[in-house]
Amino acid sequence: MPDKYTQLLGKIIEIGRLTAVDALIQWDQDTYMPQKGVNARAEMCAQIAITSHQLQTSDALGELISNVEETGEPARDTNIREAKRNYERASRLPSELVEQLSRASSLAKSAWAQARQENDFPAFAPHLDELLKLARQKADAIGFEGERYDALMDEYEPGAKSADIGDLFKSLRGALVPLVQSIANSTNPIDDEIIRRHYPEAAQEELCKHLASAICFDFTAGRLDRSVHPFCTSMGPRDVRVTTRFDERFFSPAIFGVLHEVGHGLYEQGLDPAHQFTPMGTATSLGIHESQSRLWENMVGRSLAFWKHHYATAQEYFPEALGDVPLEAFYRAINKSAPSLIRVEADEVTYNLHIIMRFELERELIAGRLDVKDVPAAWNQKAEEFLGLTPPNDADGCLQDIHWSLGGFGYFPTYALGNLYAAQFYAKADADLGGLEAQIARGECQPLRMWLQENIHSHGMRYRAAELCEQVTGQRLSIDAFMDYLNRKYKSLYSLA
Amino acid sequence: MPDKYTQLLGKIIEIGRLTAVDALIQWDQDTYMPQKGVNARAEMCAQIAITSHQLQTSDALGELISNVEETGEPARDTNIREAKRNYERASRLPSELVEQLSRASSLAKSAWAQARQENDFPAFAPHLDELLKLARQKADAIGFEGERYDALMDEYEPGAKSADIGDLFKSLRGALVPLVQSIANSTNPIDDEIIRRHYPEAAQEELCKHLASAICFDFTAGRLDRSVHPFCTSMGPRDVRVTTRFDERFFSPAIFGVLHEVGHGLYEQGLDPAHQFTPMGTATSLGIHESQSRLWENMVGRSLAFWKHHYATAQEYFPEALGDVPLEAFYRAINKSAPSLIRVEADEVTYNLHIIMRFELERELIAGRLDVKDVPAAWNQKAEEFLGLTPPNDADGCLQDIHWSLGGFGYFPTYALGNLYAAQFYAKADADLGGLEAQIARGECQPLRMWLQENIHSHGMRYRAAELCEQVTGQRLSIDAFMDYLNRKYKSLYSLA
Repeated sequence: MPDKYTQLLGKIIEIGRLTAVDALIQWDQDTYMPQKGVNARAEMCAQIAITSHQLQTSDALGELISNVEETGEPARDTNIREAKRNYERASRLPSELVEQLSRASSLAKSAWAQARQENDFPAFAPHLDELLKLARQKADAIGFEGERYDALMDEYEPGAKSADIGDLFKSLRGALVPLVQSIANSTNPIDDEIIRRHYPEAAQEELCKHLASAICFDFTAGRLDRSVHPFCTSMGPRDVRVTTRFDERFFSPAIFGVLHEVGHGLYEQGLDPAHQFTPMGTATSLGIHESQSRLWENMVGRSLAFWKHHYATAQEYFPEALGDVPLEAFYRAINKSAPSLIRVEADEVTYNLHIIMRFELERELIAGRLDVKDVPAAWNQKAEEFLGLTPPNDADGCLQDIHWSLGGFGYFPTYALGNLYAAQFYAKADADLGGLEAQIARGECQPLRMWLQENIHSHGMRYRAAELCEQVTGQRLSIDAFMDYLNRKYKSLYSLA
Repeated sequence: MPDKYTQLLGKIIEIGRLTAVDALIQWDQDTYMPQKGVNARAEMCAQIAITSHQLQTSDALGELISNVEETGEPARDTNIREAKRNYERASRLPSELVEQLSRASSLAKSAWAQARQENDFPAFAPHLDELLKLARQKADAIGFEGERYDALMDEYEPGAKSADIGDLFKSLRGALVPLVQSIANSTNPIDDEIIRRHYPEAAQEELCKHLASAICFDFTAGRLDRSVHPFCTSMGPRDVRVTTRFDERFFSPAIFGVLHEVGHGLYEQGLDPAHQFTPMGTATSLGIHESQSRLWENMVGRSLAFWKHHYATAQEYFPEALGDVPLEAFYRAINKSAPSLIRVEADEVTYNLHIIMRFELERELIAGRLDVKDVPAAWNQKAEEFLGLTPPNDADGCLQDIHWSLGGFGYFPTYALGNLYAAQFYAKADADLGGLEAQIARGECQPLRMWLQENIHSHGMRYRAAELCEQVTGQRLSIDAFMDYLNRKYKSLYSLA
């Protein structure tokens, strides 16, 4: 009979393998599944969910968790800690509530898609109301110390507290507003006509693959495919899949989308295969995950250094669009910043303002201080306040994102946390590696990739996000590195004082 | 509380959904999985196998099976009958033996691939010995009335008896030998140089898709992709995947390979979606499955009528190779018949001889009347006796097929049964539909496809293969329709007396 921990590990791995199966069948649904396959696929997904839930809440698992002992060995203790956390969370949720949540979000997702198309918030409102009611029940079942919203956010960003995040976001907003203002008043504005030229799809795809390899994505352990909404998913560090979409009239979505998703993919490929299917071999939080995607997309991918090395290649791929464009003009075009209504199209300066307003709104919604019927007005007021713009309709306003229709309250803040973590990690890597800019300008991304793997990826869930940040950078998460980065970059781009 | 049958159906569907999940993750492994994903994939497959085996042998399932009553309603009775059969088969196999079989065939598969490459039968022999030992244990655990081999064949061709098949194959061989002889002595031999010209891959792929649609494959409920070994798999009638490979110096493998796999695919697409994931919505046997692939590949796809309609299109796709080739010459080239050493390259006349010799050999192996060490000599003797050829080495002889290395004893006969069923079904459809040749020559494949769906596909597992054949054609399976078809076609092709 194997010892208790070995038995527990076996059960953890069984659940992890099913998670990988689920990731694969969802990937297929979004890439290659024929259109009529959707109903059978829903049943297949449901079956994996049922089976996985049974394993996650089994008495045998609970028994082992109660009897296994931590020994100080990092992998063992991490796996035990997370197994306990997952078992407790899963066991506290009545299966009736799990089913209600699943059904409600399935209905809400369709209702949202239609409501957005028809610009009809009232049609979506009852679904949002129901999802909020269930989310509150879920939070109460799981339990929390501070506010209800914490219990929801904890699913994506374990250990995060909304009070802390509220403070952080408040100072972030305070720092961003003057920068946005200065950019708007710049005497040296940017015209991004260059990147709105014709970029043939096949050449975009080739360049995407070229750049993905250049930032060290391993295509023998991963793939790049197409999907309507870009994403990254993983069946373990040796099978990581990213997707993108192409717009022949816009250079940015595919190229920077791929650098973003490959950033996620590098985290997955950087996890320790010896701990595959266990928490020690799993990414620690969505915020840290997003830090990896934003670091490669923006801090590397939108840097002058990166294009010093790669611009000649881009010009070869797109002789008509870029043949006569100097590097500096291209660099400015890909970094144009201006307030806009749609989050997914926002530049790196204004992006966090979109996140902060969503965080504030959903925190109020969960607390019951904002009524669903008042969401459009509250949204529009925030948009005016944060971005100086009022959405012409709800489709471009409070209906633009899918997250709420999936019941994903507490997800948004991880996007902004990702930007802050990215800058703080990048600054430390820069110090440790003795100047990243020169390396990147020589096309050498391997040192940065190895640094990230060693300091972040290889730890899996050993450290919580906040703890990892202190451990790696010596400092608690703050807005300083991010604002330093933005101020330096955009002052130069826009010739600001 | 739902009634017993509803409860049973729920459990049947759970198992069926997992089978579909398994099919999908194996499809991905053979098509898009990155090369380093193989170890994680093995674990994912193992997890689905473990979970499925638990469901298949659960006490709750056994309890329901013992207490549910048949009512004469076809779907209900079919599902109950098959649930009983599957439960009994699964329960009779000790899980230790299941694990031994899985491990042994996993090892044997690698050993076989290497042995074939190095032409080293002795390296594979101990694996074959072990697999035979385990196969005999499996047969004994399952039980049988006639001979052990029946218990193994029953997995692929439920209800088939080797004594009957032995008789059928004996008469088949007796009828084939004179035809093969006549063709060899023909004064009007066929040169297939035409189909060995240069056929660009992209055009082959386009033509494959065109022909697949022409024989009614629904691409909104299916896909065509590439794999090293062509196959068809299904996640239900609305998600059916076929694969092929391309050889630019050979017209036949991709084109007829796709018509073959699409024949399988049409069976899967023709199953009743109302019975998805249950026996009533599942193909009845491998022999019947193969009848559908061979019917479309050979009886339709290699007919003069079919190419009367499609040859102009083929010429458009391949102007250089086929531009100056008359239809008749093309038709003769794609139907060249001559004994050859490799089963998968054999023409439709000599193909069954490959099967019959394998059936005879594996029956002797399972019965213990043939020793593994004597397999190469026995194989070569049979090859000389059946085909008039002696393999120059074991790689082109007894090591050529993968089946034994997977422990798949009893699988081969289903290939020849498929050819016989195909001809008998085709003859009946021809009579019912008032002349298929003229319809096919007009490009009308829909009537035949509908006839097959109505008479064969839509019944799922309601009838065993032999029963279905009698029900559809009014006759027991015989070699008559097949030999009529071959004799008529090849007498004309080779100007035989």
